Amino acid sequence: MKEIKIFSPATVANLSCGFDVLGLCLDNVGDEMIIRKTQKKGIYIKKVNGYKIPLEPEKNVAGVSAMAIYEKLKVSHGFEIEITKNIKPGSGIGSSAASASGAVFGINALCGYPFSKKALTKFAMKGEAIASGTEHADNIAPGIYGNITLIRSYSPLDILEIKAPEELYITVIHPQVEVKTSEARALLGDAVTMSDAIKQLGNLGSLISGLHTSDYKRIGNSLNDYIAEPKRKVLIPRYNEVKKMAKSHGALGSGISGSGPSIFVLTKGLKKALKVKSDVLPIYKDLDIKVNCYISKVNPNGIKILE
Amino acid sequence: MKEIKIFSPATVANLSCGFDVLGLCLDNVGDEMIIRKTQKKGIYIKKVNGYKIPLEPEKNVAGVSAMAIYEKLKVSHGFEIEITKNIKPGSGIGSSAASASGAVFGINALCGYPFSKKALTKFAMKGEAIASGTEHADNIAPGIYGNITLIRSYSPLDILEIKAPEELYITVIHPQVEVKTSEARALLGDAVTMSDAIKQLGNLGSLISGLHTSDYKRIGNSLNDYIAEPKRKVLIPRYNEVKKMAKSHGALGSGISGSGPSIFVLTKGLKKALKVKSDVLPIYKDLDIKVNCYISKVNPNGIKILE
Repeated sequence: MKEIKIFSPATVANLSCGFDVLGLCLDNVGDEMIIRKTQKKGIYIKKVNGYKIPLEPEKNVAGVSAMAIYEKLKVSHGFEIEITKNIKPGSGIGSSAASASGAVFGINALCGYPFSKKALTKFAMKGEAIASGTEHADNIAPGIYGNITLIRSYSPLDILEIKAPEELYITVIHPQVEVKTSEARALLGDAVTMSDAIKQLGNLGSLISGLHTSDYKRIGNSLNDYIAEPKRKVLIPRYNEVKKMAKSHGALGSGISGSGPSIFVLTKGLKKALKVKSDVLPIYKDLDIKVNCYISKVNPNGIKILE
Repeated sequence: MKEIKIFSPATVANLSCGFDVLGLCLDNVGDEMIIRKTQKKGIYIKKVNGYKIPLEPEKNVAGVSAMAIYEKLKVSHGFEIEITKNIKPGSGIGSSAASASGAVFGINALCGYPFSKKALTKFAMKGEAIASGTEHADNIAPGIYGNITLIRSYSPLDILEIKAPEELYITVIHPQVEVKTSEARALLGDAVTMSDAIKQLGNLGSLISGLHTSDYKRIGNSLNDYIAEPKRKVLIPRYNEVKKMAKSHGALGSGISGSGPSIFVLTKGLKKALKVKSDVLPIYKDLDIKVNCYISKVNPNGIKILE
C-alpha cells in the first residue's frame, strides 16, 4: 500500500467532571487526510485544504507527530501528508489532536501496523504539544481508541477505553469566538481547593459507574465540574443560556468541550438532541457570532480508513 | 418486635484514590448492638462492653444518631442501646460510624423500616460529627449499604453502591498507635495542586472502571493516592515496609484505611492475603506496638440482624 485516506474525528475532552482525564470521540465531524509514501526521505505537508494551518512540517502538528513516528520507523522512504482541515483550529473539539492522531495512524497503517495504540498516542502527543504547549492526550486518545477514554496516568502512559451507552448522543455547539487553550489554562491557576477536588472526585467516580451501567440519570447527575467550568465559562458567550435551554429539553447535562469555546450537551436519544440544536441559533441571534452545531453519536472506532 | 440484635461492621474509607468519597464494608470485624424499645420516652445507652465509650447519649455517637432518627419518628416510647464495642476507637476502620449506623439501623428495623438507607445515612452522620467534627459519610454509607460505596454529593446526598469483584480480599493491619482524625485531617491543608488533583481523578476513574469490569490488574494499578497518603503516612509506623511486603506477596495494592493508623491491603484471593498477614508481625517485632490484623471479603449486605 502506497497511499491511505483516512477520516480523523473531532473529540470532546474533559466531559465536565473528567477534567484533563476524559475524552469522547465524535463520529461525523473530522478532518480527512491522505498519507502517501514518497521516495524522498522525510516528512512533507503537501497540501492543506479548508482551515489554514502551517505547511512547514516542524510547525504543523501533523508534521511533528509524523516526524516522531518516522524517527522510530527507520525506513528508507518518506511520507507526504494532505490535510482537508474541516475542524476549525481553536474550536475546542480537538482540531490539532485530529491532525496529530491522523498522521501517525496513517503512517502506522501504511507500514503494516508496527505500533500499538498507546505508542501512537505518544507520537501524536509530540505534535499536540506544539499546538497547546503541553504533551496532553485527552483529545488524542479518543481519536486513536474510539469510544470514551480515560487517562489514568502519563507516567507510565495508561489509557482506558470505556464504551458509551447505546442511546447516548452528544450535541456540540460552537460559538465562533477565539479561546486560546493556553489562556484558558492560565485562568485555572495551579491549585484546587480540597473541597472542590473531593466533589470532582465524587462526580467522576459516579460518571464512570453510570457509563458502565448505562444509567443515564446517573450520567446526567454526575456532569458537574468544580475545577474548570466556574472559571472558564466567562469566556463563552451565552454559556449559561445554552445550558439552561439544554436542560429544558431534558438533556442529561452539558459543559465546556475541552477548553472551549464549544459547548457539549449529552442527551439520551436523538430526539432531544434535535430539540437542543433547533434552539441554539435563537440564543445567539442578537450577537454577531457565527455558531456551528453538530449532533453525533459516540464513535466506537476512532479514526477510520476511507480508502 | 421489642428488641433487635445486630452486627455493625467495620469499614475502610478512602481506598487510596477515592479520598473522602469511597468506602468498603468488612464482613467479620464489627460491633454487636442490642436495641430495645422502652416504655419511657427518650434514648438511653444502657450498657457498653468492650472498648470504652461515653454512656451519656448526647456524647455517644450511637446516642446522637439515635436521637436524630428518634426526633423524626414521633413515637410514644423510647429506645435503649447496648453496645459491645469490638472496633477500637481511633483505629481507622470506622469505629464511630459502626456505632452510629448500627443505632439508626436497629431503631429503623424495630419500627418496621420507615426510613430509606439514604435517610439512615443522614441520621448516622449526625452522630459521626461528634466523633470527627464533620458530618461525613464515607464510613457510614458502606455499613448501611454494604459493598463499596461512593459518595457523589452531600448536597443533595447521593450515594452509589458498587459491587466488588468476587475474589477481592481486604487485609487490615492495625498498628495500635493513636492517630486523631482531626489531626490527620489538619495535615492535609485546604488545597491540592492541580497536577495532584488530576492524577487522583485519573486513578479514581480507573479504579471504578476496574471494579465494574472485575479487572484486578486495573484495580491494583489505580490504588494511588496523591492527596492524603504522602502527608499522612508519617503518622503510621512501618508504613512503607508493610506496603513493600504486601507488594512482594503479589497484593494488588495498599493504602491508609480512613485517616489511619490502620493499613489496608487488597489481594486477589485469600492465599495472598494469608501470606501478607503472616508477614505483618515480623515487621513490627522490634517496636513496642500491639498490632492487629484481619482478613475479610467485601461484605455485600452491610449491617446484619443477628436475632
